[in-house]
Amino acid sequence: MMEEVKYAIQDDYPNDFAHCYGCGHQNKDGHLFRTGWKGDQSITIYQPEPKHTAIPGFVYGGLIASLVDCHGTGSAALFLHRKNGHEPGDGEPAPRFVTASLHVDYLKPTPQGVPLKAVGDIEEIHPKKFKVTTNVYANDEVVVKGEVVAAVMPDTFANKG
Amino acid sequence: MMEEVKYAIQDDYPNDFAHCYGCGHQNKDGHLFRTGWKGDQSITIYQPEPKHTAIPGFVYGGLIASLVDCHGTGSAALFLHRKNGHEPGDGEPAPRFVTASLHVDYLKPTPQGVPLKAVGDIEEIHPKKFKVTTNVYANDEVVVKGEVVAAVMPDTFANKG
Repeated sequence: MMEEVKYAIQDDYPNDFAHCYGCGHQNKDGHLFRTGWKGDQSITIYQPEPKHTAIPGFVYGGLIASLVDCHGTGSAALFLHRKNGHEPGDGEPAPRFVTASLHVDYLKPTPQGVPLKAVGDIEEIHPKKFKVTTNVYANDEVVVKGEVVAAVMPDTFANKG
Repeated sequence: MMEEVKYAIQDDYPNDFAHCYGCGHQNKDGHLFRTGWKGDQSITIYQPEPKHTAIPGFVYGGLIASLVDCHGTGSAALFLHRKNGHEPGDGEPAPRFVTASLHVDYLKPTPQGVPLKAVGDIEEIHPKKFKVTTNVYANDEVVVKGEVVAAVMPDTFANKG
């Protein structure tokens, strides 16, 4: 059975901010990425669907970029939530982040048919901005490295929501 | 009516290498991104679906990363194809590229409900490696900047195909 994240930060995103195609629990057409703590690191586990193909046998890079992206914003939310004295599952709404920048290095072809694990290290670079450095593993091998700078969601989003 | 790319490089990808979720004409579940020339620049036009949401009213960043990604590999293929004396639509199979790295800067929230235009400049940095610098426009405003390094597809992909 696939390893699962028990307490995910996305489960605590407020409903009005939970429509993300990557990780919003209100978007049933989306990937439903879920990110939790694993010690001091963050982890997101996802098995791509058969349609998420690059070349038959390998996973589409854009899907992996999406995984790195939402893993990044989720990790930043985890970090700030803990800094505020909270943990996912404790009933407190989680903070929401947006992606300022995303960088992905594709080290080798990513095989299909196995769960991908994104494991992140989180660093505060400003009170409202966090850098998340991620390794994506397939079969315990690092296939992709990513870096996300995530910023606390600005009011420009909320106003239009 | 939405502006369309008439002759797209992806239309000329060989069937065995046209299953990409982003841009393969054999992947009917995918985005079917299509990239063509516009003068010396490359262009991909895509209107995100309603489900591709970040926050209601705004487009999911992972979808935009996917657009930048396939626009990058498609642009590199266009460039090499022309260097080899060919244009999309002339009946010659197009070369295939993979993404070595992807960088995306999200400059401002991307509004939903309008076509996005990715416009790229292509530079040869090695005979088998090309850098594509992209601006993504919504309503004639640059909302995202991207950079892709694309490499000629290595044999490791073909062997598994």
